[in-house]
Formats: sequence, C-alpha cells, structure tokens
Amino acid sequence: MVAREYNVAILGATGAVGTRLIAQLAESKVPVKHLKLLASPRSAGKKLLFKGEALTVEATTPESFNDVDLVLASGGGAVSHQFAPEAVKHGAVVVDNSSYWRMHDDVPLVVPEVNEAALNNHHGIIANPNCSTTQMVVALEPIRRAYGLRRVIVSTYQAASGAGQSALEELKTQTDAYNRGEEMVANILPVKGAAKHYPLAYNLLPQIDVFEADGYTHEEWKMIHETKKIMFGDKNSKAVKVTGTAVRVPVPIGHGETVYFETDDHAGATTEGIQKALSQAAGVVLEDDPKSQLYPQPIHAEGKRETFVGRVRPDLESDDAFHMWVVSDNLLKGAAWNTVQIAERLVALDLVRVPKNAINRFETL
Amino acid sequence: MVAREYNVAILGATGAVGTRLIAQLAESKVPVKHLKLLASPRSAGKKLLFKGEALTVEATTPESFNDVDLVLASGGGAVSHQFAPEAVKHGAVVVDNSSYWRMHDDVPLVVPEVNEAALNNHHGIIANPNCSTTQMVVALEPIRRAYGLRRVIVSTYQAASGAGQSALEELKTQTDAYNRGEEMVANILPVKGAAKHYPLAYNLLPQIDVFEADGYTHEEWKMIHETKKIMFGDKNSKAVKVTGTAVRVPVPIGHGETVYFETDDHAGATTEGIQKALSQAAGVVLEDDPKSQLYPQPIHAEGKRETFVGRVRPDLESDDAFHMWVVSDNLLKGAAWNTVQIAERLVALDLVRVPKNAINRFETL
Repeated sequence: MVAREYNVAILGATGAVGTRLIAQLAESKVPVKHLKLLASPRSAGKKLLFKGEALTVEATTPESFNDVDLVLASGGGAVSHQFAPEAVKHGAVVVDNSSYWRMHDDVPLVVPEVNEAALNNHHGIIANPNCSTTQMVVALEPIRRAYGLRRVIVSTYQAASGAGQSALEELKTQTDAYNRGEEMVANILPVKGAAKHYPLAYNLLPQIDVFEADGYTHEEWKMIHETKKIMFGDKNSKAVKVTGTAVRVPVPIGHGETVYFETDDHAGATTEGIQKALSQAAGVVLEDDPKSQLYPQPIHAEGKRETFVGRVRPDLESDDAFHMWVVSDNLLKGAAWNTVQIAERLVALDLVRVPKNAINRFETL
Repeated sequence: MVAREYNVAILGATGAVGTRLIAQLAESKVPVKHLKLLASPRSAGKKLLFKGEALTVEATTPESFNDVDLVLASGGGAVSHQFAPEAVKHGAVVVDNSSYWRMHDDVPLVVPEVNEAALNNHHGIIANPNCSTTQMVVALEPIRRAYGLRRVIVSTYQAASGAGQSALEELKTQTDAYNRGEEMVANILPVKGAAKHYPLAYNLLPQIDVFEADGYTHEEWKMIHETKKIMFGDKNSKAVKVTGTAVRVPVPIGHGETVYFETDDHAGATTEGIQKALSQAAGVVLEDDPKSQLYPQPIHAEGKRETFVGRVRPDLESDDAFHMWVVSDNLLKGAAWNTVQIAERLVALDLVRVPKNAINRFETL
C-alpha cells in the first residue's frame, strides 16, 4: 500500500507566521504531494522556497481550494472567516491560526500535547489557539494530570512578533531611533487600526488586542476561555478559575509568563513532583536550576519548538499553590509549529478528510 | 525664630540614584545649609552641580560626618553597613537606600504615604524600601484603608536602572550591538558579580538579585517582607499573604507591576470604589480609561515622582478580588524621591536628631 500524500495550501504564506509554516512543514512528517502558497493579491507573484524549490505565491480565491486536502491558515480573522468555509466546501481540512473559529462549538481547539483526542470530532476546521494560551497549557497539562488544577493567575510578557511582522519591524525602527536620540514613531502597536499608538521600544504596553466592556483585553479573554476549552472541554468551565493580565514587552520573539497555580486540595503536589511531571512531559523542557542560574529566556527559546519551564517553587503563603516561569517561541509553538503539529497528528490518525455531513456546516458571509 | 537649616551629606553621590538624590534635594522643602557629596575614593574630585553650584565629590571616611545633620545614603549595602553607624555616632540621621538595614527591628522602613508615623520611633537610621516594593505599597495602601487587604500576588516588569548605572549602560550597548548584527556582551546583569551573565536587550531575565535556598530570589523575598513591614508593621505579618515573581525587562527606567489582590471578605470593594480611593490618594495618579487607551507606561512615568495606576478591574472568577497595573520611576519614587520625601517629613516633624540612647545602637564591623 502506498502511503497517502497530501496537497497542502498555506493561506497567508508571506507573514511572520506564514513563512514559518513553510519551514515547519518542510521539516515535518506531513507527506506533501504539492504545496500551494496563498496570500492577498498584493503578495501574489512573490517567490518563496519550500524544500529548495521556489514556489510562486498566488492570490487567494474560492477556487484556490480545488484539489487541496489540507489548508494551514494564517491570514488573520477576516481571511479565515471568508475562506475556511470555502476550503471545507471544496473538501479540504483547515487548521486555522486565527481567532475567528476558536470558540465555535463544532471547531476543536487543539494543542496536541493536551487534547489531541478532540481532533476525532472535527468537521473540517480545527483551530490553533492563541500563542500565549498554547505555551501555558503545555506547561499546565502535566501538572493537571498529576495533581489536578483549581486555579491559574497568569501575567504575560509578550513579544512584538505576536502582533505580526510589521510590529516586529516597528520595534527595531523605534529602538534605532531612540538610540540615535530621535523621536520614536508608533503606527502599529498596541493594536493595528486602534485610535492611539504608543512606542513599544524601551516601554511596556498593558494592552494586547482591543478592550472588552469589562475592562479586560481580548487577549486576556482568550487566555481565560481558550484555556478552559482546551484543558476542560468547555470554554466556560467552572472546574478551573483562570485569570490574568497580558502585557507587551520590547522583545522581538518569545513570550514569557509568570504562572501562579493551585492544584487540587490535598493532592500531594510538591515542587519536586511538579518538576518530575514537567521533565517527562511531551513538548516541555524543564530549565530549572537556580543554583546554576538556569531558567528559561526568550533569546534561548527562539527558533525552538518546545515550551521551556523554570522557577518552579511553592507559594510560601498558601497550601497546594505554586509558581512557575514559562517561555516559548510565540511564532513556533505559539503558532506555526502547533499548526503543523496538528497537521502531523491529522495525518497519523488518518483524519485529513471532511465528514460528508459537515461540508456546509460553516457559513460564509 | 529662624528656621533650622541642615548640613546634608549624600553618600554614593555619583550613581544613578545619587545624581537623582542631588536633583530631588534641590527641588525639595529641605532647608540645606551645606551639602557634602561623598563617594568612593575612585570618584573623589569629580564635580557635580547642586542649585547651580559646582560641588566637589569627596572620598567617604568616618570623619566625613562631622557637623553633618542628615545623610542620604545610596552607596549600596556594604557602604551603608560600614558608614551608617559612623554617621549616627557623629549625630547624623541617615536615610538609607540600601537593603542592609531594612529588616533591623530598630530601623523604620518608610514610605511616607503609607507609614509616616513610623518615623517617630527612629534611632538614627531610617530605611528606604526596595523600588518595586515602594510603588506597590503606594498603590495598595489606599485600597487597604478602604476595604482591607488579605492577599497580594505580584509580577514585576523591572527596568535595567534598578541594577544601577552600569546595567543601564549595558542595556544600551547590547541593543546597539544586536541592531548592528553583532554579538551582545553581558557583564553586569542579572546580578553584578554572579557566576553567569545574560543579555537583557530584547530578552527577559527572571532573576533579580541572588537566589535564596527556597527558590525565590532575594528581590522577591524583599517584596514579601518589606510590604508586610511597611503596611502591617511586622516583616512576618500573617495579616496579609504576599507573593510574586520578579522579572527584569529591557526597559531603561520605570518598573511595571501586575498586581492581583483580595480585599477583606464582604468589605464591599468595587472597581469604582477602588478607583475613587486611588484617585484621592497622595502620590498616586489614576490613569485608567480603557476606552481611550489610557493606562500607565514607563516612558510616561520617567522623571515623575508619582505612582501611576490603571487597568483596575474585578477578578471575574473570585469574589473580593481585583487586578491592577502599577508603574513608577524606579529611580525617583523607587529610590531618590522617596528618600528626599522622608527627609522632608523628618524636617517637618522636627525629627532630624539622633536620640541620645541610640548613638551606639548600630554596630559597625
């Protein structure tokens, strides 16, 4: 029997995540028969390398998905809203990086180390979680399995690249300007298209994404509800309390997170037990030795697929409570690698097919 | 009656905090008769301006404190250990920025907005708290007065300058190197004299000060025990739970803090009530309007004496629990301004005198 090969399309191929999707796919276990690079008309004609071959970027149309088996999408919410249902109608399975479909009841939100089984129930669209959520649940899941999890309070230290290639370039331009004694110009951050922009260089911006009516940012909202959906199967699960604050920091690549968490009462969690669970967990690298000043740092995590965890220690004031520090490359595990990893699992589980009753499940405007 | 004037000495006058002590003193209500600038022999002979007059820096000796009424010390722990008792023996009152004397039972640890009354019991040495502690207690105290305070979980985003002028310069040198595509060299951070150094530029360092045996850094230890001493009068107070993680970020000046806190049960705390308490509190500027993207940022706090608070919002999962974001200039309220402010209060309360029974209270090695 000849192993199945797949026609794959990357949607949003020219962005910070898109270019990494190409590279991660090239190094993955997905057997690619043909790769199609799709983007906006503005990027059409551009050439990008895949396994040494120069591929020409095409403008996305509904017909782009003819004969495509698998779409890896990273073109933003509006693009995924429009084109993911088109792709499904054409019989392609979509793994989507945007936030658009994540909370849809028929869309599994998947981090393979945590809830791979959710893939079995897909209807053509699988969502990739928010970057800051993904690395947190990778670190929390081994702890939950060992000792349960009642509560999480997270503070994020998020890199510029989480807001895309233009934000990454803005950080460098601003830094150069500041170092030359010139004024910093801000046009992108904190949120593209927002009324006000502020420099990120040498600064901290406690706003990621837009504000909700309750005073939380949408990024914070995502961390709360995506964590519940991924780890507890319900975006409004009461089984765990999740809360926190998301802050953008002047780092190009690599999100940091301080994570306070409480395990189940009397589950016997210890620092050593948590460290052991983390050291044995898939996708986690434990970097935790204060004596030798070993702890995760963004500059060491950049370019790596794993989630790095350190500074594990007990809360000195409360029982069954602990702290840790989590770092991962937000463009890889936080985006491109998790997407390709989902694709690998779909291939391994022979799930790269749209169920017949699902072809028209997702409406397109 | 002629108002009393004071002979003042600044110890450690040439550092990042020292130069700001000179500027803050010049703009303060402390009536300065004569100012003496003291530093290590290496800096002796250097000239610095005070109110338009060039003063020559002198090498510190025990005799430096003859005829001095008030010492503002910022030369580090070893210098304060050696010279603060000498100054007291010479009849001078010392306001000390170092951590050396903070936990001594006979040394008040003072943030005027919080515990000015503690000055009444001084024995010649008054300690200025750690920078990250000071801005947090300024923000928490109005909330505690209105609704009580049971618990605090803080994550810090601390600027390079908290580690001194050399760390600030290292951040800029590293950033320049990175932007030119060259390797970053690290000799200072995370801790001067530690076995390993890491770049701070474009990175995050979850180590501030040395590690304790329990896995906490000494910075985290300070935030826990100094907060308890300042707000609850006892460094081991059980009246409040305080915990957190301290992280160095690539910002030159201005610390940020995410602060989760719980008020007393059923004390009726609301976001609006907390915002009102903060807006009326001395030393606090409430910058809290998500609709207009108003929130504290280090680049706006730099050079200001106040503590800026925003992003006040209820925890959505727990009762009587809230979050806020706190920013202040770590070299001013976190160091030089709080020190000069203590001096102003000592003058106003006529407390610039060493009690007779206290002359030999503090031993010098």
